[in-house]
Amino acid sequence: MNTNNDTICAISTAPGIGGIAVARVSGREAIDICDKLWEGKALADVASHTAHLGYVRDENGERLDQAVATLFRAPRSFTGEDTVEISVHGSAYIQRELIHALCAAGARLAEAGEFTRRAFSSGRFDLAQAEAVADIIAADSRASHRLAVSQMRGDFSAKLNGLHDSLLELVSLLELELDFSEEDVEFASRAKLRSLAADIRQTVDRLASSFRTGDAIKRGVSVAIVGETNAGKSTLLNRLLHDDRAIVSDVHGTTRDVIEDTIDIDGVCFRFIDTAGLRKTDDTVEAMGISRTFQRLSTARIILWIIDASRPETIDNTAAEIMSRKADDSRIVAVINKCDIADAAEARRRIVGIYSGSGADLGVRMGAGEGAGMCTGVSHVVEISADKAIGIDALEALLVQLSGAKDISASDVIVTNARHYNSLISARDSIDRAIDGIDRAISGDFIAQDLRETLHHLSTITGTITTTDILANIFSKFCIGK
Amino acid sequence: MNTNNDTICAISTAPGIGGIAVARVSGREAIDICDKLWEGKALADVASHTAHLGYVRDENGERLDQAVATLFRAPRSFTGEDTVEISVHGSAYIQRELIHALCAAGARLAEAGEFTRRAFSSGRFDLAQAEAVADIIAADSRASHRLAVSQMRGDFSAKLNGLHDSLLELVSLLELELDFSEEDVEFASRAKLRSLAADIRQTVDRLASSFRTGDAIKRGVSVAIVGETNAGKSTLLNRLLHDDRAIVSDVHGTTRDVIEDTIDIDGVCFRFIDTAGLRKTDDTVEAMGISRTFQRLSTARIILWIIDASRPETIDNTAAEIMSRKADDSRIVAVINKCDIADAAEARRRIVGIYSGSGADLGVRMGAGEGAGMCTGVSHVVEISADKAIGIDALEALLVQLSGAKDISASDVIVTNARHYNSLISARDSIDRAIDGIDRAISGDFIAQDLRETLHHLSTITGTITTTDILANIFSKFCIGK
Repeated sequence: MNTNNDTICAISTAPGIGGIAVARVSGREAIDICDKLWEGKALADVASHTAHLGYVRDENGERLDQAVATLFRAPRSFTGEDTVEISVHGSAYIQRELIHALCAAGARLAEAGEFTRRAFSSGRFDLAQAEAVADIIAADSRASHRLAVSQMRGDFSAKLNGLHDSLLELVSLLELELDFSEEDVEFASRAKLRSLAADIRQTVDRLASSFRTGDAIKRGVSVAIVGETNAGKSTLLNRLLHDDRAIVSDVHGTTRDVIEDTIDIDGVCFRFIDTAGLRKTDDTVEAMGISRTFQRLSTARIILWIIDASRPETIDNTAAEIMSRKADDSRIVAVINKCDIADAAEARRRIVGIYSGSGADLGVRMGAGEGAGMCTGVSHVVEISADKAIGIDALEALLVQLSGAKDISASDVIVTNARHYNSLISARDSIDRAIDGIDRAISGDFIAQDLRETLHHLSTITGTITTTDILANIFSKFCIGK
Repeated sequence: MNTNNDTICAISTAPGIGGIAVARVSGREAIDICDKLWEGKALADVASHTAHLGYVRDENGERLDQAVATLFRAPRSFTGEDTVEISVHGSAYIQRELIHALCAAGARLAEAGEFTRRAFSSGRFDLAQAEAVADIIAADSRASHRLAVSQMRGDFSAKLNGLHDSLLELVSLLELELDFSEEDVEFASRAKLRSLAADIRQTVDRLASSFRTGDAIKRGVSVAIVGETNAGKSTLLNRLLHDDRAIVSDVHGTTRDVIEDTIDIDGVCFRFIDTAGLRKTDDTVEAMGISRTFQRLSTARIILWIIDASRPETIDNTAAEIMSRKADDSRIVAVINKCDIADAAEARRRIVGIYSGSGADLGVRMGAGEGAGMCTGVSHVVEISADKAIGIDALEALLVQLSGAKDISASDVIVTNARHYNSLISARDSIDRAIDGIDRAISGDFIAQDLRETLHHLSTITGTITTTDILANIFSKFCIGK
C-alpha cells in the first residue's frame, strides 16, 4: 500500500535549544542516506533497534557533532519504513546543519505530519488513530490526554468497525433479496431489519452526541464569568488562577482578546472567557463591550453568574439578559460572592423567587443557608468569598462535575474530532433515511443505497475510504517531524 | 571517582511541544526505576545499546504513552552510568507526567548540567571539555560551533596537558636540585630554565590573547554603527539585516535596549549595537542619548562610522569624539554612504586630511576613488549606497575579515571561556614571577613555588584541581537535561 519513493527527514523534537535534539529519517533510502554522513560503524550492517555512537558530518564533510544513531528497520518502525533516528546536541546550529546535510545526501524535508501519514499509508494504523497522534501531542490535561490515548489505542476504530460489520450484514441481506427479486422472497423480515438499523442509529447518535463533551475536554471547557461591575469577577478569576496550580496561558496570540486564561482543575482544562462588567450605561463604547459579553454567553458551556451578596437588588438588572442569551445547553451557576461581609439569604431568596420552575438542584453552598427552592435556568447556587478564599474548593469541584469529564469511564468512546463528528452526523442522516424507507416499505434497493451511504460516511473516519485532499488537510495540521 | 548514589532524570529535549520528547534517566538504579513504569520487555534483561517498543505507565499505573526505551549500560553511556532514554510523544502533559512517574519510582529531577557533571566525575572527559558541551548547545553560528567542537574534542585540553608536563619537568629539576642543595649542584642551567619558562609563558600568553577573538566569536562580534542623524545608519542596518539571510533576534529581553540585532554573515555572528544619531544639541535628553552612544563605542570591537557623502563637512562634527572614545583595540571603518547621489572624493579627502598618520590600509571602496592616504584611527574606508545596495558585499566581507574568525585555522586553539581566561591570566602572572626570580637568581625553592602555582592555575581549567563551589557554578549555567 505504501508508494512513497522518497526519503524524508525532520527534527522531531520541540523547536528551540535543548540538551539533545533528534532528527528522524524515514524511507527506502534512509539508511543509505544516513551512512553518507555517518562516521562510525556502517548503519547498513547493523541490526534493527540498535543504537550506535559516532559522528555526523556536515555538507562539507566536516565533523558536525558526536551523535547516537538508532536504527529501526522496516516494518518495525513508527512509519513502517526503514527509519534512522539521529540524536545530537540540541543547538540551533547543529539542528539546522544536520537537516542541510541530510537533504544534501538525498533526503527531503518532511511536510507537517508526513511521518504519521506514512504510518497510516503503510497500514500501521487507521486514519482515526493517526489523527489521535496529533491530539496526544497537543493534549495538556489528563482528561484530554486520556481521550486521545483511547482513540489512538483504537477504541473508537473498534466501535466503528463493529458498526461497519453490522451495516454490511444488513446490506448483504437486502442485496441477496434483490438477486431473488423475481421470486419475491424476503430474507430479512422488515421488523428485524428496522430493529437492527435502529440499533446502529442509536450507536451513531451516541457517538455524535459525545462530541460536545469530547470537544470541550479537548479544547478546554468554556466558562464565562459574568456579573455586575464590582461583583468580584476579577477577584474570583485570580483566585481560581493562582491557587498553587500551574497557569497554562493561552498561546494563540490572536485569541488573547477573547480568552482570558486556561487553567487545569483536577485534570480538566477550563477556558475562562473574559467578559465586560454588566451595568446600565449610556456610554456607546461600554454598551458595545456589554453586548459582546452577551454574545459570548451563547458559546459558553458553563456560566458563572457572580452576584454581590451585599447588593442583592442588582440581581434584577442582569438576570433576564443572561437567561435569554445563554446557549440552550449551557449551565448557569449563581455564585453569591462576598458572603464573608453579607448574608447570602436575600440574594438566594431573590434568585429562587425570580425563577420559579422545576428541576434544578440548588444544593452547593457555603453555610447552612435557606432550603433550596426551584428555579429555571440556574442549575446551582454557590456561596463564596473570593476575597477570603471561602467556598472556592466547592466551586471548583462543581466545575469539574459540570464539565462531564468525570462521567466518562475508561470504556466510553468519546468523539473529539470535528471531522469525525461531521461524518457521524452524515451517517446518522443516511441511516435515518434508510429507517424511513423501511417504515414506508419502499423497495429494498433504495434502502440498501442509504445503508451503503451510511457505510461510506463511517469509512471516511477510519480512512478505508479517503481522498488525497482529505488526507492532505488532516496531516497539514500536524507539526513538522511527526 | 564517581560517588553519585542517586539516579537523576530530566527531559533532555528542548522545552515545549514537539513530535517526540526524550527523557533521560541516569544512575545506579536507572534501569530498575524505568522497569517499574515500563510495560514491555524487562529492561534489566536487554543488552546495552538496544531500543525497545513498549508503554510507559504514569504514577497511578495507567498507560501514559507508547514509547521507545533505549538502554546504555555503564560505562558505555554519556554519563558513564547506566542510562535509559525514553522517547515519548512530545505533549506537555506526557512530558510532565513521565517525569512525575520517574520521580515517584525513585529518580530525582536532575539539576542543570548534572548529566554532564556526572560525565565529568566518571572521567568521561575533563572540565574544559564538559564546559564545551554547554557552548556547543548554545552555538548559533558556524564559527562559534567550530570553536566549541574543537574544545570538546580536547584540543585545548591537549595544549594544557603539554604545558602541564613541561612545567612539571621544570619543577622536578628544581626540586631535585633542592634535595642536593648542600652539594650546590645545578641540574638545570639557569639560562636553560629561563628559556623553557619563557616558552611556557609565550604559549600561555597566546592562549590568553586568543580570548578576545574567541569571546567575540562565541557571543557575537560587537559592531557599533555611529554617525550623524540622517547619514543612513538605519538604512544600512536594515540592508545588512534583511538581505536574504536569517535574522537571529536577540533572545535576552533584558539587553534588548542595548543590542539591536544579531546577524550571521558567512558563518560569523555579529551583534549590532544600537546608537543614537550624533549631532550638536542643547536638548538634555538627546545629549544623554548621545553620551550613551559614546560609552558604547568603548565596548565595540568594530565601529562603522557612517558619513554622508553629500555632506562631507559633517565629518568634523563627530570625528574627534569617536576617535577619543573608542576602545584601544577596536577598528574603525569609515563608511561613506550615499555614493549613488554624491561624489565620495571630498569625504575621503577630509578623512585622510584630518588623520594624518601611518599604517592604515585605506583600501576597500566602491569605485576607483582617490589613492588611499594615511590616517590614524580609521583602518578602512568603504564607499557604499545603503539605499541602492551598492558596496554592501564588500562591507560584509570586510566585517568578516575584521572579526578574525577566518584567521583561525582548524589547528588553532582559541579560548572562549571567561573562567579559562582568568585562570590563564593568573598562570601568566605566576610564571612571570618565576621568570623574574630566575633573572634575579633567587633560591630555587621560591622559583619552584611560583611554577607550582602556575601548574595549579592551569589545572583548574581541566578540572584536575577543583572545588565543589567551582563545579556547582560551572554546571549551573547548563540547561536542565544535559
